[in-house]
Amino acid sequence: MPEMIVGKSATKYDAFAKVIGEAQYIQDLTQPRMLWGKILRSSLPHARILNIDTSKAEKLLGVKAVLTAKDLPGRRIGFGNDNEVLKRNKVRCVGDEIAAVAAVDEATAIEAMSLIKVEFEPLTAVFDPELAMAENCNVLVHESRGSNLSLEYHFETDEAALAASLDQAAVVLEDRFTLPFVTSSAMATHGCMALYRNGELTIWTPTQVPFLYQHELMMATGIPGNRIRVIQPTIGGGFGAKLDMYPYEAACVHLSMVTGLPVKIVFTREEEFQASRPRQPMIIDLVTAADRDGHLLARKAKVICDNGAYNSWGSTTPFVGMQTISSLYRVPNVRYDAQIVYTNNPYSGAMRGYGNPQHTFAVESHMDMLAAKLGMDPLTVRLINANQSGDVTPQKMKITSCAFSETLREAGKELGSLPSEPGKLRGKGIAGLLHVGGGARVYRSDGCGAVVKLDDMGRAVLLTGATDMGQGSDTILTQIVAEVLGLEIKDVKVINNDTNLTPWDVGSHASRTTFIAGNAAKIAAEKVRSQLITAAAQILNANPDQLLLRNKRIMVEDAPERFVDIGKIVRSLHFKQDGKLLVGEAFYDPPTEMQDNQFLGNVSAAYAFGAHGVEVEVDRATGVVKVLKVAAAHDVGKAINPLAIQGQIEGGCAMGLGYALSEEMKLREGRVINANFLDYRLLTAVDIPEIEGIIVESDEQEGPFGAKGIGEACCIPTGAAVANAVYAATGVRIKELPITPAKVLEGLNKMRSTFDT
Amino acid sequence: MPEMIVGKSATKYDAFAKVIGEAQYIQDLTQPRMLWGKILRSSLPHARILNIDTSKAEKLLGVKAVLTAKDLPGRRIGFGNDNEVLKRNKVRCVGDEIAAVAAVDEATAIEAMSLIKVEFEPLTAVFDPELAMAENCNVLVHESRGSNLSLEYHFETDEAALAASLDQAAVVLEDRFTLPFVTSSAMATHGCMALYRNGELTIWTPTQVPFLYQHELMMATGIPGNRIRVIQPTIGGGFGAKLDMYPYEAACVHLSMVTGLPVKIVFTREEEFQASRPRQPMIIDLVTAADRDGHLLARKAKVICDNGAYNSWGSTTPFVGMQTISSLYRVPNVRYDAQIVYTNNPYSGAMRGYGNPQHTFAVESHMDMLAAKLGMDPLTVRLINANQSGDVTPQKMKITSCAFSETLREAGKELGSLPSEPGKLRGKGIAGLLHVGGGARVYRSDGCGAVVKLDDMGRAVLLTGATDMGQGSDTILTQIVAEVLGLEIKDVKVINNDTNLTPWDVGSHASRTTFIAGNAAKIAAEKVRSQLITAAAQILNANPDQLLLRNKRIMVEDAPERFVDIGKIVRSLHFKQDGKLLVGEAFYDPPTEMQDNQFLGNVSAAYAFGAHGVEVEVDRATGVVKVLKVAAAHDVGKAINPLAIQGQIEGGCAMGLGYALSEEMKLREGRVINANFLDYRLLTAVDIPEIEGIIVESDEQEGPFGAKGIGEACCIPTGAAVANAVYAATGVRIKELPITPAKVLEGLNKMRSTFDT
Repeated sequence: MPEMIVGKSATKYDAFAKVIGEAQYIQDLTQPRMLWGKILRSSLPHARILNIDTSKAEKLLGVKAVLTAKDLPGRRIGFGNDNEVLKRNKVRCVGDEIAAVAAVDEATAIEAMSLIKVEFEPLTAVFDPELAMAENCNVLVHESRGSNLSLEYHFETDEAALAASLDQAAVVLEDRFTLPFVTSSAMATHGCMALYRNGELTIWTPTQVPFLYQHELMMATGIPGNRIRVIQPTIGGGFGAKLDMYPYEAACVHLSMVTGLPVKIVFTREEEFQASRPRQPMIIDLVTAADRDGHLLARKAKVICDNGAYNSWGSTTPFVGMQTISSLYRVPNVRYDAQIVYTNNPYSGAMRGYGNPQHTFAVESHMDMLAAKLGMDPLTVRLINANQSGDVTPQKMKITSCAFSETLREAGKELGSLPSEPGKLRGKGIAGLLHVGGGARVYRSDGCGAVVKLDDMGRAVLLTGATDMGQGSDTILTQIVAEVLGLEIKDVKVINNDTNLTPWDVGSHASRTTFIAGNAAKIAAEKVRSQLITAAAQILNANPDQLLLRNKRIMVEDAPERFVDIGKIVRSLHFKQDGKLLVGEAFYDPPTEMQDNQFLGNVSAAYAFGAHGVEVEVDRATGVVKVLKVAAAHDVGKAINPLAIQGQIEGGCAMGLGYALSEEMKLREGRVINANFLDYRLLTAVDIPEIEGIIVESDEQEGPFGAKGIGEACCIPTGAAVANAVYAATGVRIKELPITPAKVLEGLNKMRSTFDT
Repeated sequence: MPEMIVGKSATKYDAFAKVIGEAQYIQDLTQPRMLWGKILRSSLPHARILNIDTSKAEKLLGVKAVLTAKDLPGRRIGFGNDNEVLKRNKVRCVGDEIAAVAAVDEATAIEAMSLIKVEFEPLTAVFDPELAMAENCNVLVHESRGSNLSLEYHFETDEAALAASLDQAAVVLEDRFTLPFVTSSAMATHGCMALYRNGELTIWTPTQVPFLYQHELMMATGIPGNRIRVIQPTIGGGFGAKLDMYPYEAACVHLSMVTGLPVKIVFTREEEFQASRPRQPMIIDLVTAADRDGHLLARKAKVICDNGAYNSWGSTTPFVGMQTISSLYRVPNVRYDAQIVYTNNPYSGAMRGYGNPQHTFAVESHMDMLAAKLGMDPLTVRLINANQSGDVTPQKMKITSCAFSETLREAGKELGSLPSEPGKLRGKGIAGLLHVGGGARVYRSDGCGAVVKLDDMGRAVLLTGATDMGQGSDTILTQIVAEVLGLEIKDVKVINNDTNLTPWDVGSHASRTTFIAGNAAKIAAEKVRSQLITAAAQILNANPDQLLLRNKRIMVEDAPERFVDIGKIVRSLHFKQDGKLLVGEAFYDPPTEMQDNQFLGNVSAAYAFGAHGVEVEVDRATGVVKVLKVAAAHDVGKAINPLAIQGQIEGGCAMGLGYALSEEMKLREGRVINANFLDYRLLTAVDIPEIEGIIVESDEQEGPFGAKGIGEACCIPTGAAVANAVYAATGVRIKELPITPAKVLEGLNKMRSTFDT
């Protein structure tokens, strides 16, 4: 039976509310007698705090509370608990939280901050992770740890086999790839509103992971978890930056606790640049070895990751990058080493792709360089190594559905047809990707709960733990429930913004929501459906297997004139003695495993594949790279909402192009010097080329209606594809993003001088 | 096993929020760009509308919409569909809705109303239901009906047996009892806020019956029910007056539909008096027959009820009053006839007791008069006729738990011990009651749905359809869930204010919430509990039957040192591969039946009994009745929250005493002339005597933990008890409420003149 709603483009569930301005972001929320909170942040990257004098600030009319570390219980937060809510003895990066102020209005809070006097003893700082790891480095970001190494990740297949394969290889490439700080630039800055009253905390915050957040806030404040209610306002973009609980949020709770009033803190755009979590810069030394025919024999990567001053969830991104090194294309011998290094830079975190854009840039640049070295076509060398359904990768990841080859073929197909104009050089490049597409068991549970209620008016309500931070998952979930129950999309409502109401979910990350929450919603709806069908079979005197749910009716499949209205069935079950309601409940936890301490295990129930093809035109004189077109082919399993996938692809490509060409958070002594949208060169509408989304369906058996995750995938390979296209156009190989005109010109000039000599 | 939480007094769930002013009533709600709506009401009780000129109002700056009947689809609303949202051709009572205005602020809306010109042709009106039913009455409130009789109710047992019993009776009393208009005087006036947008309606309204309301609003506006979401703000008292959907609510929806903006209408206190639903005045002609020993032989009642201009739910109150006539005390032969009569008075509705305070006043006055006639003690004549467990009444109501006799004994026990002072006359009186206490199947379903979620933080959330309008049901429900799951009350949250979220419930009426919603919550919680116990039995290696849930632990009953934390069990079930959440769902619909067209059937799963004893002191010179004490004994089955029952009793008695002594909505030509709290003599704190609540438990097998309903019961017999006490003190029998000093004086004077002659 063909689906009626799943597979057809649907307008976003929240589009209308957002377009007319009805959606309420944290910026819009208020409470009676609400105070404004502000955080006094360090202006120095590394300094001892000798004294903090808050007396003048406290005396300012309208100031209700001034808190410093001494007023707090001294709990540490963050991944690895290396971060204080307010810093007691020293600051480790520009932006570090020193004091928190609550006042009757924002202006008073700002004035109060200016009245706080902090006496610092500046310390030597380290901003380069390689210097931070050098033996002679005498700067320790965290003295007690004795080193600036925060975390290490190591994976390898058989050591001897790896060495042998390198010896036997026809080609061994060894290159360093360098990736910059970029930030997700969500349109809505961070902010939260806390109300602690009568022993209960309510916090409104745009977290992506409300249930993990509830737990983190319990650890950060000491308030029992069952006294914490997390309510999510409309989230104006997350992209991973809203995965961690931030120090300011715990500070905001303490401000409410001491004042007894609601307190709201909202980031300025400058704070958003300096104090939200950017994507981590990485230095990747990659070795790729292949035989004469282009078959990959081995890969070795040594990665240094600039962690900044503290850990965050993002300190675990090598977990994902490692999968790209070990499992993007078939490669039998692998070694991976990553070091997460403390510096006095802003601390990095999760951002769409979670380490994968960096690693894929290295791997896919090398695939092109390998093709060049062997004189092969870049597509061919990829196709002969492409993962296939049924593969088990060196990390024991089990590839189920896989249309990688098809996406590679599709992505490059229509590019490169036009000739170059004088003074311009054209070229096309492609790059592939692998990413988790069926959840990622990085927590003990990767599940999501759902409750579906179908009422006697014919309205279905889905209570789900899943968070929509703009990616469109609410729309997908309404489609799934409507499809299962034979309703219109408009008949389905989603409730998912309040931990008191909704069943647990690990949160929106790892492109898991369509897959995991989709399955949960589907199973819950099917429980309702089976009750409907049993009742309808009796009414219609038909075999339950012959019944179809369509257009709010249940009908006999090959005799559609025999039907009964769904609302009527609900009412017939409900409005009688000993009646019943139609409620279905489900918890879907995918059939996956946590990786062991060797990083072995099938972490996701499905994997997403895809490829981007890019055509560029490079100006010989200026080095300016203009992207003419992106053809982005993605294996999504099944497109539940093609329009939403197109949106994800366009957004992902725009983010990937910015990463490739222009975005970089520039630091001087740990301070972001382009902390505004004029200087931080986010691409704008005029910079975006035609983006062709190509949806490839592979029917993932474990996915809801065959679907897999797509959210992160579509920003991952763009950087490499652009670099490969620039190489194809110019012969210049750029190994460091962004690909600025200066770098291209330098490359062109070098080539000229090579010819000259 | 004794209960730990059920049976112990608990602070009201919403007390803190209400005390600090956090609770949001309809008066507090707002929305961006919200308009203020006002209703232009008729100043005449009966008139033809010749013309409405809204042109000036429409031109007023700030006015966004002016609607009259011609702008509306012309749907009729109310019980029997006899009411228009805005009146087209004629008005039938003062307060009838003629036009609706929406403006940017309240002052502008008021000014706009003053600019609307309505041309009336006044019609003769009828204000007396007996005149309205007279053959020569030439006023028809609803011409098309051909008569002013709206509804009739008739019940009788065997006609011949009834006639014979009257013939054989030793005593036959025949009296007329007259009951006035009173109104519930909820502290929060009516109001609603409507937002129709993108084909979906959200309405915030303090309805007691959100799901019936959703249906009524669908019928009233034509918006499909599955596009209507009803959200209940904190309800500042319902008492039955918030059972009906009002015309202004549908008008408010239309204002939002035409303006595209949120619109709020809130009643003034004057509107609350004139245009909310008061308790219906009744004229009850009662015949009571008994044998020489005081055994009741027969009862006959003929009731005329002033319906006012339109029907409402309250037009069905004889349904309840009939039960009092047929089933309060054992009486074998019964006849009941009631007429619901249209007049041009304000139209009456549901109010606490739903016809029962009126009927009980008549029956219990007669019981006293019977005792006097036979020279028996008023308690004795009641005890020999009192209902007993196992009885089936003439209407086939099955009496299960019944401690009626005990409440009768308890209520009078300690009264009447003090001697009268000079010039004062003291006396005590008692009166009993019967009311539904286990729901009332007046709708096809009398059920309530519940979903209980127990999360890994140890917080339980109950989603219930049940409405707390101030009666304290949320507290009861938290106690029940906490008791079943071994949690603290504070660990349980109740969500019940949004039809999108909550499972269906017929609504808060008929004192059904503790019983029905309590059972639903209990069953849902027990489903969670059984999963906990299964897991705990494995962990503790114990027999499931030996396990106790207490203080957030599950322990072995006779070895409490063997225990496991409940939170730990939840986490152990959840945080693993193939984990599960703890969610339980239930729909409880009591084992009752709708009465047939002969009014036979067991409409409630349990019946509440009780008795009030009152001691009064009457001033011989002024006729002023001072109540010295009320002893109110109630058979509640089981007191889940004794403090809440005490609160219900105090509130009920205060309402009952007001009904007895001072409250009366005074009408002149259909206009309420005491439409304010200065003139409408609600009793105040200084008027309220000591009220002793006496809780009698009878362990109702079908009730949650043995409980039965109590909400309405405690205001029902007070009026009769006061009248009986006044008689005991003075010998004056007052058959018309309220018992004003003038009536008492008149009685005293009559007695003196009787002595004089």
